[in-house]
Amino acid sequence: MQPESIRKYKRDMVHMEAVLGALRAEAQKIDQYMRADLARLEPGIDAKLLEVLNYGLFNGGKRVRPLLTAFASRLCGNTDENVYKLGCAFEYLHAATLFHDDIIDNSETRRGNLSVFKKFGITAAILAGDFLHALAMATVGKLSGDKGLEIFCNATTGMVDGEFMQLRNAERHNLSELDYHDAIMGKTGLLIAAACEIGALYGGGTAQSVKALREYGVHLGCAFQIVDDLLDYLGDPAKTGKTRGNDLAEGKITLPLILTMNTAEESDRSRLLSILEKKSERARHFPEVCMIIEKYQGFQTAKAKASAAVENGVRALQIFTDPNVLHERTVLEGLAGYVITREK
Amino acid sequence: MQPESIRKYKRDMVHMEAVLGALRAEAQKIDQYMRADLARLEPGIDAKLLEVLNYGLFNGGKRVRPLLTAFASRLCGNTDENVYKLGCAFEYLHAATLFHDDIIDNSETRRGNLSVFKKFGITAAILAGDFLHALAMATVGKLSGDKGLEIFCNATTGMVDGEFMQLRNAERHNLSELDYHDAIMGKTGLLIAAACEIGALYGGGTAQSVKALREYGVHLGCAFQIVDDLLDYLGDPAKTGKTRGNDLAEGKITLPLILTMNTAEESDRSRLLSILEKKSERARHFPEVCMIIEKYQGFQTAKAKASAAVENGVRALQIFTDPNVLHERTVLEGLAGYVITREK
Repeated sequence: MQPESIRKYKRDMVHMEAVLGALRAEAQKIDQYMRADLARLEPGIDAKLLEVLNYGLFNGGKRVRPLLTAFASRLCGNTDENVYKLGCAFEYLHAATLFHDDIIDNSETRRGNLSVFKKFGITAAILAGDFLHALAMATVGKLSGDKGLEIFCNATTGMVDGEFMQLRNAERHNLSELDYHDAIMGKTGLLIAAACEIGALYGGGTAQSVKALREYGVHLGCAFQIVDDLLDYLGDPAKTGKTRGNDLAEGKITLPLILTMNTAEESDRSRLLSILEKKSERARHFPEVCMIIEKYQGFQTAKAKASAAVENGVRALQIFTDPNVLHERTVLEGLAGYVITREK
Repeated sequence: MQPESIRKYKRDMVHMEAVLGALRAEAQKIDQYMRADLARLEPGIDAKLLEVLNYGLFNGGKRVRPLLTAFASRLCGNTDENVYKLGCAFEYLHAATLFHDDIIDNSETRRGNLSVFKKFGITAAILAGDFLHALAMATVGKLSGDKGLEIFCNATTGMVDGEFMQLRNAERHNLSELDYHDAIMGKTGLLIAAACEIGALYGGGTAQSVKALREYGVHLGCAFQIVDDLLDYLGDPAKTGKTRGNDLAEGKITLPLILTMNTAEESDRSRLLSILEKKSERARHFPEVCMIIEKYQGFQTAKAKASAAVENGVRALQIFTDPNVLHERTVLEGLAGYVITREK
């Protein structure tokens, strides 16, 4: 049972392809600006650091955050190209968190290649992350002023806080939906919301526009993470490039499981808890866990929640009625649809 | 053969004690502001994160960087207390780099206690460092504006670049004095210089005053690191809390060794190089290496260079002739003297 707006996106794949095409063209511009930053830095920095940055930044990322900054600013009427420079800051911070997360999670690979940590070692991964963090802050401070920097720093400290919360939650198997919501806000929502909000500020948006774009970003970010967590259960490994069931194996409790625990009969609920208790048993019981989740429609309900989040996000864009920015609004709406329908 | 200014400081220990007393009182104020920051953050952050921050920030640090910010700003005529808030940013960034460095160096202890990394694990040390990094940037951006943030970010990226340079240098045993200077600027000089420069900017200093305080900071920072490196050879473990010879054992080539290599006869030079080549042999040959350095007065020459740096730093303060800030100038001069005479 999918909401009308989502069915529309699925039907209209021609439209979606057009949106994705527009985004790809813009993503290439972001890459150009990132390469220009590195070229500017090159004479002053160590060759190895430059190598790490090149490797870690140009590895097939879709540049979602910078694209959001660029489109949000244009939706608010901005036409200058410096917004790409500002957008790069979000990719730098995102990459910095990935460099550090791969150490924390001991991840071998990232988007099909060796992670920075595995390729260059822990020292390089920590330091290059710190470098990008500082570069991101400097960029945001320079281009979006005090207000933008404050939002950006709050997103960063919020992300760290979210990771600490996840560490704490890792020992608990009875998470509430609210716990989950807090966790995905920290993991994904805050930075995506900041990318939209700061883009709107940079674009000279009114308080109402800035608020609307933040709202859009919060919902988009949360939907993005819910879908990510669903793909861990249901994704096609040939498309996602990852095996299924990693979250369960690591004891990460995501939305489908939470929803199931909330509605399951006591016998199913204790069965799930007993599987979760024994770390070494979890992977083996993945098919059984999926069946129990199916029984209580946990996947469907999670999907519906992601769709509802996207609908709320798209609804926030309704205030942008100026025909001159119809293209930008359409692209942002299309991006929201893509978040729900994506298979990788 | 010590320069007059340094002999003066050594003779005048009463004066030095007065200076250190003034600094200690101010350091307590810095601690109060840091505790106020944590109290403000407490309701919004995870309890474990707060515990890590409390542990890592209040571990007996001398608050040299915030003190420099406070005194530099007052030397330029500032009288408001918000400068302590600004100063805290330098302690936050300093602590962030220590959290990360302890992982990189696999350090068990920090100032006689377990390092954050050893006490709370690698994940907490990476994340809490990232949190403090963002908090530092937000504070500097808010209180010292674009210009201050730019200097601060350049110091951070320069520190990372310096660490990459050290990684590269770790494979070379024929470092030049210039290589060493670049390394200690990255490791210590840049952040101390930024603490002084941003303090001066915040204090409303003229371009000339800002430049002079940066100059003072650069020299102070370099002298500080040279003395640190000398203590690794000559320090009293009962006072420093560290065993001697760690740098040699790790193959870190510091100033006394560089100066010796530059002037030694070929036979001594090749002997030093052959000791450095064999990692497992270095610690055993520490006494012999010290004797060769002594033979060529490598320690004395390094000390003289630190003294010369401090003298240059103090000389930069001569432009501050206003009797109203005589106390501040005296404290900064005294701090410079302390850097040279310190035994821990």
